[in-house]
Parts: sequence; structure tokens; C-alpha cells
Amino acid sequence: MTFVSFTTDYGLADGFVAACHGVILRMVPTARIVDVTHLVPPGDVRRAAAVLAQTVDSLPRGVHLAVVDPGVGTARRAVAVRAAGGHLVGPDNGLLIAAAERLGGVEAAVTLPVPAAAPATFHGRDVFAPAAAELARGTELTALGAPLDPATLVRLPAPHARLRSDGVLEAEVLLVDTFGNVQLAAEGPLLAEAGLRPSGRALVWAATPDAGPSLGAAGGTSATELAVGVTFGSVAPGELVLYVDAAGMAAIAVRDGDAARTLAVAPADRLALCRAGASAAGASAAGAWA
Amino acid sequence: MTFVSFTTDYGLADGFVAACHGVILRMVPTARIVDVTHLVPPGDVRRAAAVLAQTVDSLPRGVHLAVVDPGVGTARRAVAVRAAGGHLVGPDNGLLIAAAERLGGVEAAVTLPVPAAAPATFHGRDVFAPAAAELARGTELTALGAPLDPATLVRLPAPHARLRSDGVLEAEVLLVDTFGNVQLAAEGPLLAEAGLRPSGRALVWAATPDAGPSLGAAGGTSATELAVGVTFGSVAPGELVLYVDAAGMAAIAVRDGDAARTLAVAPADRLALCRAGASAAGASAAGAWA
Amino acid sequence: MTFVSFTTDYGLADGFVAACHGVILRMVPTARIVDVTHLVPPGDVRRAAAVLAQTVDSLPRGVHLAVVDPGVGTARRAVAVRAAGGHLVGPDNGLLIAAAERLGGVEAAVTLPVPAAAPATFHGRDVFAPAAAELARGTELTALGAPLDPATLVRLPAPHARLRSDGVLEAEVLLVDTFGNVQLAAEGPLLAEAGLRPSGRALVWAATPDAGPSLGAAGGTSATELAVGVTFGSVAPGELVLYVDAAGMAAIAVRDGDAARTLAVAPADRLALCRAGASAAGASAAGAWA
Repeated sequence: MTFVSFTTDYGLADGFVAACHGVILRMVPTARIVDVTHLVPPGDVRRAAAVLAQTVDSLPRGVHLAVVDPGVGTARRAVAVRAAGGHLVGPDNGLLIAAAERLGGVEAAVTLPVPAAAPATFHGRDVFAPAAAELARGTELTALGAPLDPATLVRLPAPHARLRSDGVLEAEVLLVDTFGNVQLAAEGPLLAEAGLRPSGRALVWAATPDAGPSLGAAGGTSATELAVGVTFGSVAPGELVLYVDAAGMAAIAVRDGDAARTLAVAPADRLALCRAGASAAGASAAGAWA
Repeated sequence: MTFVSFTTDYGLADGFVAACHGVILRMVPTARIVDVTHLVPPGDVRRAAAVLAQTVDSLPRGVHLAVVDPGVGTARRAVAVRAAGGHLVGPDNGLLIAAAERLGGVEAAVTLPVPAAAPATFHGRDVFAPAAAELARGTELTALGAPLDPATLVRLPAPHARLRSDGVLEAEVLLVDTFGNVQLAAEGPLLAEAGLRPSGRALVWAATPDAGPSLGAAGGTSATELAVGVTFGSVAPGELVLYVDAAGMAAIAVRDGDAARTLAVAPADRLALCRAGASAAGASAAGAWA
Repeated sequence: MTFVSFTTDYGLADGFVAACHGVILRMVPTARIVDVTHLVPPGDVRRAAAVLAQTVDSLPRGVHLAVVDPGVGTARRAVAVRAAGGHLVGPDNGLLIAAAERLGGVEAAVTLPVPAAAPATFHGRDVFAPAAAELARGTELTALGAPLDPATLVRLPAPHARLRSDGVLEAEVLLVDTFGNVQLAAEGPLLAEAGLRPSGRALVWAATPDAGPSLGAAGGTSATELAVGVTFGSVAPGELVLYVDAAGMAAIAVRDGDAARTLAVAPADRLALCRAGASAAGASAAGAWA
């Protein structure tokens, strides 16, 4: 069995995803394709990279094809990468790196040639899917293109997450999922380091990018108190809960509700969290999220 | 060939569906997975149960994995069920019962253990998909967990549908589909029992939950007359038609239009129907749906 | 390997797509189904035909099942068609023709019988999927139904595209994709014939159906100037670009944006294009799209 996972921003209303499936299946009729998602917002490389990285551990070993490629047809490189746990194929815009790291890190990489006659707007079909199919049928990575130094691969900036000296955890919103659950860029253990443990209480507020320790820094908004729990059912319906999600990241949910809407936050927003009553800063915070 | 069907409210924008596919394929690389739908509104167990039950007869024999699970991580049981026509796996919240009945009824059931180390928010990946994969590769149901008495399985309340003594058919809206077709909880033959046959005319109006026989009970709204037909083409474009749908249920459509929008009804709303001119109540009803 | 592609307006929220997959897999367990799209707007035969035709060249040889069928259950014929490059199955409403032409043209066609007992609203499940499965397992086309004269197959009107004697290219909007890229009904080479080549500049304006050569014909709107390029990256972010798309058609995009929204155009709208400064008509056009 030969598995290819497939992640794009192509949407499901056109034939783009099927065209790539078709290209792969024409080359490797026995390939099994697992669609990760094709509903990445157009050009949102950051979201696609995070979704793929958080899914790849559950996928069968194989080739991971990912195409969110606003620079298609420009000088950005098309690449294929080998990690200990599989191959990855896509544009050199940072999309593949986090997943490659989950698979053991980039061991080798090549630049994929772009056929001169190919249209300049659909490298998913014309460049990336054929390369993924070659790898799926066992072609060596080095046969696909000129080697490149993995250190030169484009990387996305690391999302913000830090435990401040005053015990406040600052973290960027990494993903908002279908349910409105708000995943932070902070790994789960950082919660415990910040004194935030199940059955405890926390405060959350908006942290401006250059936030000092003062609460309500973002235009006078004040903090919201919420429970720390282990699942949605740790709180009553409609209540907020801070927990470690299934990807191992700190996250905030509303039971039977939509936390992103409740908190009015979106990816890249920065939140600050502390134990309720624990820090001088936190202790002074009260009232509703603006 | 080993088939697994898969129904959730996970949406298609995240990697949740793919993670479950991956878990199954890692355990049973030859499994074939048929996605029923992943666009169940979050937590809408009732809709998911109805969609799966109405689809399962068309699916190949196999394992039916369904996860709409607002109680994930709480005390609700995780279960696997055997019916004459296949296995079902999911939370014990009523989701599986209607489909199990279409497959011959529950013959045996077990409680699935939840690994202590598993995150408490993604049992689809960590509990249910692995159990479905075990069944797909031939593991006996009884090897998966402790037996439970099928009579203790949680059941959803039966949707309202009754033929009143005055000949009026009352029925709850069970499903509204992509096209806006309004499926009632009444089996097709009930239409004939109410005197509603193709080429006839019907009246439909809103029935309050405790409706007596008076028309326009719901705040003075009056009845709408519509044709009884066999398909959308039984009426002119834009017109309402009452028919028996492909799941064998009474349904109302607008040809080339959206009946749910036209009638302003949604799932769980109750409608009343009678033959136009047939009942004293119906005979007095006229005019437009409010 | 036996491939079946599948295109519908069934949406992804119900079990309709899965029911058809199931019917095929029950008959041909080894069949591989490639979903082209199920998000065709309800009843939009024209869009479905164009998407399938532009995808079919990338798909493995097999059976192409397409069901966008507002006339289901009426006198419209159900058909199966053989082309040099594969089979097609669907309603006789024009849906299959463009794809059949991409596959070498219709060689033979049959009318599929409709089982008298089948519900009249789900021929996808009850008529078309079974026929596709028969073809997928090698049954001869002629065994499926009564032969029909291919010349009698319903055809969609050809979309409007012509190079006027004054050098202006008029073309209807054929498709708007997920990204908002506006595909015109004009084949790529028509751009060159109109003097529109990469690195050049073009003017685009609304052409009324009976447009004469005057600009701003559509209610006083005037033309918009844009670059001619080869890909989105040919222009700066937010700028319009005219290019030949991956299906070989003239198209207009906004880099990192949505051209359909920017131009406020939709499928079936007619646009006119000429080289900036090239035609007397074009030369007088300036200013913003209304």
C-alpha cells in the first residue's frame, strides 16, 4: 500500500483536487490518497502548516503533498523533502517544515523542475502531484531534482509563546477549529509551569504584541476568568474552559459553544493567561472580556 | 474488502477526519473508508442519526463509525454494537440506534475502554477509530470491551408523527437537505392513509406541539395548499409539492427551489397536513403561509 | 483498477454522495471513486459540465458519473455514453457532452431504463450509480439500455466568445473558481489573436449581450486597465492580471485577491477585452469599473 496525504487551499467546489488525485492515480493506480483538508483559507500557509503538522502523526507512512501556494509560477522553489518518517512535497514557503519536524526533521531536499510548457498557475497538478506520485512509486528523492541545502528552506516565523517572569503565559492563537475551539501556540506543559492545572481557575486577557505585565493593556479590556479542565464536559454548557487539546496544545473552548466567537479572537491574536488570584497582575483583573 | 463508513460533525476544514482515516489505515491498510458526511452541525446527534440511518442501506456491509459526541471525555459510554447487517461504533448518545435498527437491530454491544493516557477531547481518533479498525480486521466484538445490556443503550426520543382521528397527519420536520427539501418524520404510507395521493391536493400548516384540530393554531397563520406528486417535476418551477422521498418518507419540496426557506421551517418544527377540501378543518384553511 | 469519477450538486451535508459510493462499491468492491465535486450549485448543469470537462483529462480512464438533474423523475432521458477515452453516465440535459468531447466525442449512447419501483427523486442512487458500476465492471454499454442516436442528445448552448472585426474580444464568464478567478469562455489563443500578450496591457469592460463597439455600454460603466501576464505573480498584490489559465482559457485574477468580487462579475456575464491603446474604442476607455 502506498499512501499520499493531500492538503490544499483549493476548496471543494472546483475540480482542482480531483485533477491532482487523477494525476497521482494515473501514475500509481494503487495509491491511496488521504485528504487532510482542502478548505485552508486561500493562501493561508500558516494554517495549512499547522493543520498538517498536527495530523501527520496519525497518518500512514507515505508522501505528504501540500499545496498552498500564493507564489505559484514565480521564483519560489518547488521542493520535495525526505524526513525519517516520510516524504513531503510542496512549495518552498514554509508549508512543509513543521510536518517534516514531526516526522523526524528534514534529511534531504531537492528542487523540483518546472516543465517549461506547463501552465504557470496549477503546479499542484503539473509539478507537485507528479513528484508525489514518483515518490509514492518508490523513485528516489534525488532522482526528482537538484539537491538543495535544507538550511535554505523557507521557514515560517515561530508563533509567539512565552512564560513571563511574572508567571503570566503569553501565547498567540495558532488555530481556530470548526467548533470554535481556540488553540494557543503554547505546548500543554507550559500550562502547568504557569500554575494552571485542572480544577483550578485562570484569567485570560488580550496581550498586545509588546504587552507589559499590566492587564487590560489592549484598549482597556479586562480579563475573563475561566475554569481549567480536561475536556468540554469539565464545565457547564456555555462556560469557558482552558485545557490541553488533542494535539497537546493549550486551548480554550466553550462547552457546546464557540470560544473564538465568545472571546472574539482569531489566529495570530495574542492572549495572556495566569492563575486566578495568583499574580499581582492577574489578581487585579476582573470583569468581562471587552 | 473491508469497508468502514464514517459520519461526524468534524467539518472539513481541520485535519480531524484525516487523522481518523489515518488511524484506521495504519491498522488496516486495505480498509476502504466511505465518508457519509462530516458536516453535521456541531453536536447535532439527531441529524447525524437520521442521515446515517437513511444511508446505511446503500452502503457495503462493514463497520459504521459515527462520532457526534458533545459529551466526549465525560461519563457517557463509548460503545461498539453488532447488528445482523454490520457493526457500529460511536458514543452512547443515541447516534447509532436508528442505523442499527436498519441493519437488523442490536444483537450485542460492548463498552469501549478509554485509555487513561488519551486526551479527553478526541475520542474519534483515540477510542472510536481504533475500535472500528479492530472490527474491520475481524476482531470479535466481545474482544473490544465489557459486554453491556443493549436495553441500556441511550435512545433519542422518537420524532413526532401521528395520524389524528380527524384525518390530519401531524409530523415533525426530521431533516432539511442541501436542496431545502423538507423531510417529515412520517413514513410514506401515512400519506395514503391521510388520503394524500399523487395528483391530489393537500393543505399544510404549522402545528403547535399541543395542537388541537383548529387550523392556523400557530399565531393565526393559515394553511398553504400544495400539490401531491411523485417528483419535483410533478409541479411547475417554483411550486410546492408533497411526495414520498427516496428514503421512503413524506417530504415537501419546491421545484427548482428551497422548500424550507419557502415554508420557513426547520428540523423539529411540527407540520400538519390534510387533503384539500377533505376535512372540516382543512376546508376552512386558505391563503398563504405566514 | 477500475475508476469512477463522480460529479454532483448533492452537497456534502447529507448522505447522498455516500449512498451512491455505496451502491457502486456493493456492485464493484474494488472500484476506486474519485470525487470531482459535489458542490455544484443546485441544478447548475452548465457549471458542472464545465468543471467536469476541465478535469476529465487529468483523471484515470474509467467511468464518469455526473448527476446534476433538476428534471429527475420527469421525461428527460437517463443516458450512458461511450467515448474513445471512457464512459459517461448521467441525465440527458447537456451535462456530459463537453467532457465526452474531451474524451474523443460520443461514439455510442443508450437510454437507461428507470425501474418502475424506484423512487422518482434519487436516480443518482437508483439509476445512474448502478449503470456506472455495470460499466466499471466491464458490462458492454449496449447491454445497459436501448441505443439512441447521439445526435439527439441534449446539448447546452455554446457560451459566447468571439473576436470582433474591430479587434475586441467578447467572451462570457464561464466559471468563477474558489479563489475568485474569472475564467472566460475564450480559448487562450484568442488572446494572442486580439493582440493580448504577456507584458502587454489590456482593457476590460462589461459587454451587453447585443453590445456594439462602444465602451461603457453597460449603463455608463467605463473600462478597467489591467496587465497581461502568465501567473498571479506577474503583478503586484491586489492588482488584476489577464492570463491563460491551467485549463487553457483566458482568465482574469487578482493577485492574493478575488477578481470576481473586484470586477463584480458572475458566470454568464459578458466581458469585452482589447489591447490598451490599441482600438479606437479601447483608447477612449479609462477610469474605474463601475
